[in-house]
Amino acid sequence: MTPSLVANGGVAACEAVAAPVTGRVAAVYSEVQSSRIDHALPLPSVLTKPFKVVDGPASSAAGNPDEIAKLFPNVFGQPSALLVPSDSDSALPQQKLKIGVVLSGGQAPGGHNVISGIFDYLQDRAKGSTLYGFRGGPAGIMKNKYVELNSEYIYPYRNQGGFDMICSGRDKIETPEQFKQAEETAVKLDLDGLVVIGGDDSNTNACLLAENFRGKNLKTRVIGCPKTIDGDLKCKEVPTSFGFDTACKIYAEMIGNVMIDARSTGKYYHFVRLMGRAASHITLECALQTHPNITIIGEEVAAKKQTLKNVTDYIVNIILKRADLGYNYGVILIPEGLIDFIPEVVQNLIAELNEILAHDVVDEGGLWKNKLTSQSLQLFDFLPEAIQEQLMLERDPHGNVQVAKIETEKMLIQMVETDLEKRRQEGSYNGQFKGQSHFFGYEGRCGLPTNFDSTYCYALGYGAGALLHSGKTGVISSVGNLAAPVEEWTVGGTALTSLMDVERRHGKFKPVIKKAMVELEGAPFKKFASLRNDWAINNRYISPGPIQFHGPASNALSHTLLLELGVQA
Amino acid sequence: MTPSLVANGGVAACEAVAAPVTGRVAAVYSEVQSSRIDHALPLPSVLTKPFKVVDGPASSAAGNPDEIAKLFPNVFGQPSALLVPSDSDSALPQQKLKIGVVLSGGQAPGGHNVISGIFDYLQDRAKGSTLYGFRGGPAGIMKNKYVELNSEYIYPYRNQGGFDMICSGRDKIETPEQFKQAEETAVKLDLDGLVVIGGDDSNTNACLLAENFRGKNLKTRVIGCPKTIDGDLKCKEVPTSFGFDTACKIYAEMIGNVMIDARSTGKYYHFVRLMGRAASHITLECALQTHPNITIIGEEVAAKKQTLKNVTDYIVNIILKRADLGYNYGVILIPEGLIDFIPEVVQNLIAELNEILAHDVVDEGGLWKNKLTSQSLQLFDFLPEAIQEQLMLERDPHGNVQVAKIETEKMLIQMVETDLEKRRQEGSYNGQFKGQSHFFGYEGRCGLPTNFDSTYCYALGYGAGALLHSGKTGVISSVGNLAAPVEEWTVGGTALTSLMDVERRHGKFKPVIKKAMVELEGAPFKKFASLRNDWAINNRYISPGPIQFHGPASNALSHTLLLELGVQA
Repeated sequence: MTPSLVANGGVAACEAVAAPVTGRVAAVYSEVQSSRIDHALPLPSVLTKPFKVVDGPASSAAGNPDEIAKLFPNVFGQPSALLVPSDSDSALPQQKLKIGVVLSGGQAPGGHNVISGIFDYLQDRAKGSTLYGFRGGPAGIMKNKYVELNSEYIYPYRNQGGFDMICSGRDKIETPEQFKQAEETAVKLDLDGLVVIGGDDSNTNACLLAENFRGKNLKTRVIGCPKTIDGDLKCKEVPTSFGFDTACKIYAEMIGNVMIDARSTGKYYHFVRLMGRAASHITLECALQTHPNITIIGEEVAAKKQTLKNVTDYIVNIILKRADLGYNYGVILIPEGLIDFIPEVVQNLIAELNEILAHDVVDEGGLWKNKLTSQSLQLFDFLPEAIQEQLMLERDPHGNVQVAKIETEKMLIQMVETDLEKRRQEGSYNGQFKGQSHFFGYEGRCGLPTNFDSTYCYALGYGAGALLHSGKTGVISSVGNLAAPVEEWTVGGTALTSLMDVERRHGKFKPVIKKAMVELEGAPFKKFASLRNDWAINNRYISPGPIQFHGPASNALSHTLLLELGVQA
Repeated sequence: MTPSLVANGGVAACEAVAAPVTGRVAAVYSEVQSSRIDHALPLPSVLTKPFKVVDGPASSAAGNPDEIAKLFPNVFGQPSALLVPSDSDSALPQQKLKIGVVLSGGQAPGGHNVISGIFDYLQDRAKGSTLYGFRGGPAGIMKNKYVELNSEYIYPYRNQGGFDMICSGRDKIETPEQFKQAEETAVKLDLDGLVVIGGDDSNTNACLLAENFRGKNLKTRVIGCPKTIDGDLKCKEVPTSFGFDTACKIYAEMIGNVMIDARSTGKYYHFVRLMGRAASHITLECALQTHPNITIIGEEVAAKKQTLKNVTDYIVNIILKRADLGYNYGVILIPEGLIDFIPEVVQNLIAELNEILAHDVVDEGGLWKNKLTSQSLQLFDFLPEAIQEQLMLERDPHGNVQVAKIETEKMLIQMVETDLEKRRQEGSYNGQFKGQSHFFGYEGRCGLPTNFDSTYCYALGYGAGALLHSGKTGVISSVGNLAAPVEEWTVGGTALTSLMDVERRHGKFKPVIKKAMVELEGAPFKKFASLRNDWAINNRYISPGPIQFHGPASNALSHTLLLELGVQA
């Protein structure tokens, strides 16, 4: 049942940095893990034959092109690159390449396949090339900590979840000193190229590295790859970030299960908080997959300037309607970052609390509360006691209130409960309410990648190899036409500067790739908005079941992607 | 992607009791759900041909046979029944049957298939028979609330999770008045038989009903079916309860994912609490499937009379050893019912607190604590503040401390953190500790049943039909030889009284089917115990991945079952 597999999976490369090197140990894989290793990955047909790169028109920026041009004098304005079939590969340099790869930020299913894709490209098209895996994220570049990847090393990680092949990290290459360290590594290893696998920040960083290397006349080219389960790094040319598909399907499996539980017992309201702090794409996708009774989308809350009381009222009203119909159960999805979308909380109450906590005495009697503005005081008094205490007691090293620590799902359960109790006493509610809280997060980041994420990542990596080989720098690997069969997927690179705008920080312009938020005018939200009233009252629950690698639904794309591509209505 | 299916799944039968009857609505199923409906279920070959029932020797009881004999004068001592091939079915009565079925207690994946199995038996072998589904558990019997099940009604529930076809309930048929109500229903519906699908309590109840019906000379026979994800209803003839397989695989998928997360980030200790209050089978099975660094088994804690401090020390010692090796991460499994296994908590502290809270004033200054025995005071002071507050504040309607509400995983994180901090100050710990808590429970109770649970349940139900048809009563449907191909599975019935012992309650003997606890001398625990020291220090993580319905591992049995059957070493 659990065949052994001699693999380097036993001790991850990054562990070995701190841990004593115990050598490669025999790791035991589950039957499903083992079967995935040899899962054959189709490639877009353009990558299976000789190709050449065709450049599009010069690019601009997502905003403030003049400022972006100033920040990136060497790489700004680059055309998008598209791979097209060619008679021969003769246009590509006939040389061995030295390439580095790094994983940056939180895990997303499929990262190992990006690396496998780069490796296989080099094996197939630039024999004798070397691939270095920088350990533990960007810090590995700065400290020149790496492992040379070969086929035996990579093999057990193929189609596997996690980032443990070379591990990741959250360091950034920001200061002149850090850029200098990166240069030193590039020179020392004689790198022709570097692939940075990461989210919006990491890809911005990749572009700064590309700019810097070119400015210093180093040969090292830099290619980005779009990674984040949050789904908030995307644009026309990069239809989705990898990991989103797998993570949403794992969460949707769990949500579907608790829906059946809710319907079977008839007595629980399941409040499910879903990972994804900045944008609510995961919550929206899970809603489209499962049809919950209530879904809160942070971007809508922000756009409508809703208060916590508005959100609570919305939930309570649906619960009241359902109670009238005899339904004392339901499922409610909440994005992890909800609190961050509520202006009254973030901009007012939190700021005022931080101020008071820094300068005033917080007396037991509560006189300190007089220092709050009346709106904030009203909000504070509206919060459940446990949350009030959490806000006052748990503070970060700078003494600030920690919004991130608030368990929003539990807070909402308490607020809803209080409200319903009030209505019960007024005689307007006669139902039963029992809230059950859930947080689905970590279990989705490191799952076995779906067939889609496996294939998509492999193409992203293989394409990144092709872009480097073709001399490109400062572009993000872009695989498109995803609703078509894999053979017809397009492969190319998009100028990273074309995704950028500037933000003013500490009096200086900083380049940023803007996070792609849920668009209230976009097809996924509009579809959701057109159906939610029906879902609220009628029980249209769908249970997607566990991710399948064979048979039904094993190659399904996310609803978000299908709707954004216009192939689902 | 999500084909519609006209089904009665839109409004569950039990909802309709309270909800206005909106008729059958079109329910939308996911692709995986749809594909499961028509999944072909193999039957043990003895059920596919003419059979007859062979009786074994007279049975006794698990304990106190004299008392059990007194409590069950009409059904005690019945032989076990085994179905064997026969030349013809002529021994079976050629009559139409009227059978009732009821789901009792918490959901377990596969319940719908037991019902499908009974239904199909009646269709195949006793054409024209009627199957009534009692709604909402035993209350449905007492109130004579039922739905007549036909093939259209049952169809969309085949191989689906949940209990929503007829829903379940936790009522018991206990008082003379309640037994009278059950009799009235049996007479009114002219029932030849009743199948009770439930756990240890419900099967005890099924036997009491069988005894009562026979004592009153009613023709209604009663058959039990072993249901519980907790896996604590089993014996030689009933190798496992249904639902255990699916629930453990769902939890193991999630545990495997957080393991990869732990290894990838290298900075979290994931404390995972797993459903299963009475016994730790789920935790043990998940450990065997995934190889966590630390696993707490409640039965071992109880047997060794461990204190909370012992448990904390055990965890801390492994964390210290791992820190020395450079591992500041890990995965720890904790059974939901841990607290109940710790004698000092349950027998002493809780009892003392209940006493004090009932009779004394709890003063702010803490003078009340002097009323605790010194051992309990020590334990109380050892508990994290949040847990102390929870114990003092949250009480049940009788004013008792609510042990069940304690989030054991969070409590342990706090206790470990405190201990490590102390050691850091003493200079004996230099690592990093970050605990992440998880509770996996509801998401496992209602998942799509695995191939094993689907097939096992179908055989249990089909077999229950055969037992009723053969005139049996007071037996539990027993399907055995489970490690062999399905065709070779054995089918029969085991006298429920043979599983019973008595407990003295309020001065009277009460019959009980003893919960099957984790046996410290049993094969599953011994295997775990022989490996855990290795797992603690080395990272032998296995990630089982999502449940598959086709291909690798799709027909795997649980480790617990394989070890108990002696087919895995």
